Amino acid sequence: MVLGTAESAVLCFDVGGTDIKAGVVDARGQVLGMRRVPTPLDPARPGEAVLDRLAELKAELASEFPEAPAKAAGIIVPGIVDSVAGVGIYSANLGWRNFPFTAEATKRLGIPVAFDHDVRSAAAVEHSFGGSKEFNDVVVMVVGTGIAAAVFSGGKAVTAGGFAGELGHAQVPDPDAAGSTILEAVGSAGAIAKRYHRESGIRVDGARGVLLRANAGDAVAARVWADAVDALAFTICQCVNIIGTEAVVVGGGLAEAGDDLLEPLRKRVDAILDFQRRPQLIRAQLGQDAGLLGAALNARALLGGTP
Amino acid sequence: MVLGTAESAVLCFDVGGTDIKAGVVDARGQVLGMRRVPTPLDPARPGEAVLDRLAELKAELASEFPEAPAKAAGIIVPGIVDSVAGVGIYSANLGWRNFPFTAEATKRLGIPVAFDHDVRSAAAVEHSFGGSKEFNDVVVMVVGTGIAAAVFSGGKAVTAGGFAGELGHAQVPDPDAAGSTILEAVGSAGAIAKRYHRESGIRVDGARGVLLRANAGDAVAARVWADAVDALAFTICQCVNIIGTEAVVVGGGLAEAGDDLLEPLRKRVDAILDFQRRPQLIRAQLGQDAGLLGAALNARALLGGTP
Repeated sequence: MVLGTAESAVLCFDVGGTDIKAGVVDARGQVLGMRRVPTPLDPARPGEAVLDRLAELKAELASEFPEAPAKAAGIIVPGIVDSVAGVGIYSANLGWRNFPFTAEATKRLGIPVAFDHDVRSAAAVEHSFGGSKEFNDVVVMVVGTGIAAAVFSGGKAVTAGGFAGELGHAQVPDPDAAGSTILEAVGSAGAIAKRYHRESGIRVDGARGVLLRANAGDAVAARVWADAVDALAFTICQCVNIIGTEAVVVGGGLAEAGDDLLEPLRKRVDAILDFQRRPQLIRAQLGQDAGLLGAALNARALLGGTP
Repeated sequence: MVLGTAESAVLCFDVGGTDIKAGVVDARGQVLGMRRVPTPLDPARPGEAVLDRLAELKAELASEFPEAPAKAAGIIVPGIVDSVAGVGIYSANLGWRNFPFTAEATKRLGIPVAFDHDVRSAAAVEHSFGGSKEFNDVVVMVVGTGIAAAVFSGGKAVTAGGFAGELGHAQVPDPDAAGSTILEAVGSAGAIAKRYHRESGIRVDGARGVLLRANAGDAVAARVWADAVDALAFTICQCVNIIGTEAVVVGGGLAEAGDDLLEPLRKRVDAILDFQRRPQLIRAQLGQDAGLLGAALNARALLGGTP
């Protein structure tokens, strides 16, 4: 638990492509009644369907924890998010375009709503409480099925109207052909499993299965893993050259590989760079609930409370 | 002339790899006595040799313009510059490492000194007065013999202790081999002339000569030009994905190509990007003296004057 005390309880909702995680964070900073429900997918009204479900969750949590009435709610979602305008600009998985989340959620929930990006919110918690807190120029990468990131420059989150941190869609050299592809297609946990299956015909238990095989001497697995490391290092070096990144925090499923990922990544980054500062590569310390905690901090900030 | 009035005159020095440009900017914002002298290169004491020359220039300008006594000086240099610490961390061309410019220059010149990076200072002037002033997330690229850049995020310069904006050293796909090279080796005016000469055996008048030949139907020249456009577009798209860049200002010698550069660059950037915002590509408006004006503004800022 990383949160301190505040004046009031807040609701927090982490809306993902598959599940919504929800809970109440009480005034002492404790998470109560955390639950996970399927994300409703309604192509005709994707944003509204999600908010209907959040209103139900609010009612459930309110009757379950009458001693902790929420004075604000934090909602975080994936995709392109303009948190200042309160708009979900685009989500490939969830289907909305320019949905006015803050306004609609405030109406439905009847309390002030802090709306923000899932990875940026989780990364802010990671950056405030984790291993990168001494650095000002930081990138937090969440490497799982896809790749998302939050960028900090001079100690502040870079948002650019929601368009910053799209590291998964940055170009990298294509290991399978001349030219380029995107980082997510080579360096994500999802891509590692997929590329290994395509090249070997063998289905394994995700990126972890590929790593186990690579460590056991499987040459195809070793190459697929090395390709992922190369691609991640390529993108990290872009960050170093463009914005002078001092530290990169790697989270998400792939970070569970620990030094099997970070050690070759450090070597590759070092080989690419010349006179530039070598960024610290740090494993994320907070787990899957960092997003929910980030949503709670956003909601508390709305109430002017201390994080 | 872009500068307004201020309380006092200031000295400005733009220290380049070949020349030092110097002048006085008087209280009305007029540049007086602008001159260009060779940069002294002394491997044993590179920083000191430059400052000795600046002290001479100060004395010359003071006796020439007794009506405009300078109350502060702005000095800008290339390389890696930590303007907060006042240190020239590294310059490949000029040879210093960790030279305490602000402290030493203040001693020698006897007036307060604002020390900063040449391209960042020129870019700040370009961004304040040029075509990108309405944007918050901007990259100013100076594409000449080499490539330098200044990065703005949320309206503020990204410095990262002097290590931001090294776009010339960012990796791009190598058009001549498998793998990667750096942007400067393909996308700079210098690289365009060099690669064309290497491939055709023909010496031309720099990148301009290559463009003339490409426009006249020379296939090698067209390919070299297209490679440069591809490399510049690749790096611009990295900026878009990492920090959500809205506008890219292109200056330096290569920008003189105008639409012969910007039109294919726009097309290529558009082809690489997917859901992302397309950045505006804008030709720099200020010329070679933007650096000197930037140095003057830095010096004025030190005195608390209005730019």
